[in-house]
Amino acid sequence: MNLSKKNIFWQQSSIKLENRQIKNGHAGAVLWFTGLSSSGKSTLAHNVEKHLFDLGMQVYVLDGDNVRHGLCGDLGFSVEDRIENIRRISEVSKLFMNAGFIVLTAFIAPYQIQRKRAKKLIGTTNFLEIYCQCPLEVCEERDVKGLYKQARNGKIKDFTGISSCYEEPLSPDLAVNTAQLSLEESTNKVINLLQNRGIIHG
Amino acid sequence: MNLSKKNIFWQQSSIKLENRQIKNGHAGAVLWFTGLSSSGKSTLAHNVEKHLFDLGMQVYVLDGDNVRHGLCGDLGFSVEDRIENIRRISEVSKLFMNAGFIVLTAFIAPYQIQRKRAKKLIGTTNFLEIYCQCPLEVCEERDVKGLYKQARNGKIKDFTGISSCYEEPLSPDLAVNTAQLSLEESTNKVINLLQNRGIIHG
Repeated sequence: MNLSKKNIFWQQSSIKLENRQIKNGHAGAVLWFTGLSSSGKSTLAHNVEKHLFDLGMQVYVLDGDNVRHGLCGDLGFSVEDRIENIRRISEVSKLFMNAGFIVLTAFIAPYQIQRKRAKKLIGTTNFLEIYCQCPLEVCEERDVKGLYKQARNGKIKDFTGISSCYEEPLSPDLAVNTAQLSLEESTNKVINLLQNRGIIHG
Repeated sequence: MNLSKKNIFWQQSSIKLENRQIKNGHAGAVLWFTGLSSSGKSTLAHNVEKHLFDLGMQVYVLDGDNVRHGLCGDLGFSVEDRIENIRRISEVSKLFMNAGFIVLTAFIAPYQIQRKRAKKLIGTTNFLEIYCQCPLEVCEERDVKGLYKQARNGKIKDFTGISSCYEEPLSPDLAVNTAQLSLEESTNKVINLLQNRGIIHG
């Protein structure tokens, strides 16, 4: 027999999450931003992060563009690899939440099943799905990274929204119309959500 | 062409690590505990965590036993999988450190190359290798999880120290003789190291 999972035991942290939350003055949570490329996920997540940090909170953005170089540097963009990418990010988000953080994740996460699994893993209470709602034509016009152009030219295959599907969230905790709202207005919507859910105090 | 790494851009955090450190009152760091099974890594790491938390610091233990169920739940115990296990943990430790945390990792990490890579990835300044030095016979006598017995009976293959090698650290930042020192004495040694390196204030 090889060493297997049944030989692995849970080690309880010596510090209860409750005590971390009391110290930090807010709950641990995962704000799961989802939406098309150039829909404003990273911009909004970073602005919310700054806002919360300035209020004295423990907050951190896990960003698709960054994580892809490190933790998920071995993964490509096949359906399987995209699912594994989001699985790892979900696990890391859970670790951060258990460490008392408000974690903001900014990934396309195009499939319902990915977000459903993330929510199941992290727990329904403090997992908030935030849909950055922006028409494809607006995203394509922004084309922050010039990727849509390459996708239209056929230079990039399997690009979400063009040649690969994006399954819209059916019942997100919040939908932010990033095509119409300003960054400050969008940020305020997220902050209000956190207050309404009791994750931060008003 | 498929979407590839060259289409992925770095997203700078809106908050500088320096500002996180000022807020927390200590530097971000990774305390990398290594040693045989039952050498006291987890026990020591959790005790240091509690000590630092009570001092008001942001601190978190990444524990082999825990991470194995989640982030690395897809990995086994082959040499390749052990290396990938430690690679992912190194990446997650780096994320936590960048979020301002003092991270304590408690994994066997039996190969020099694993620890060398972790140090290279995380950076030499705030990566501290702490060797839980304990003779095999003492670890085997403790046998907290009953694994040595199974390894001796041939029920577990490739078990570090018995049928798989453990490469001792050549120049750890600290070696703690966990066979002779009490938990409090060992904890104090780690705390002194953190003070001497300027990660926490004395």
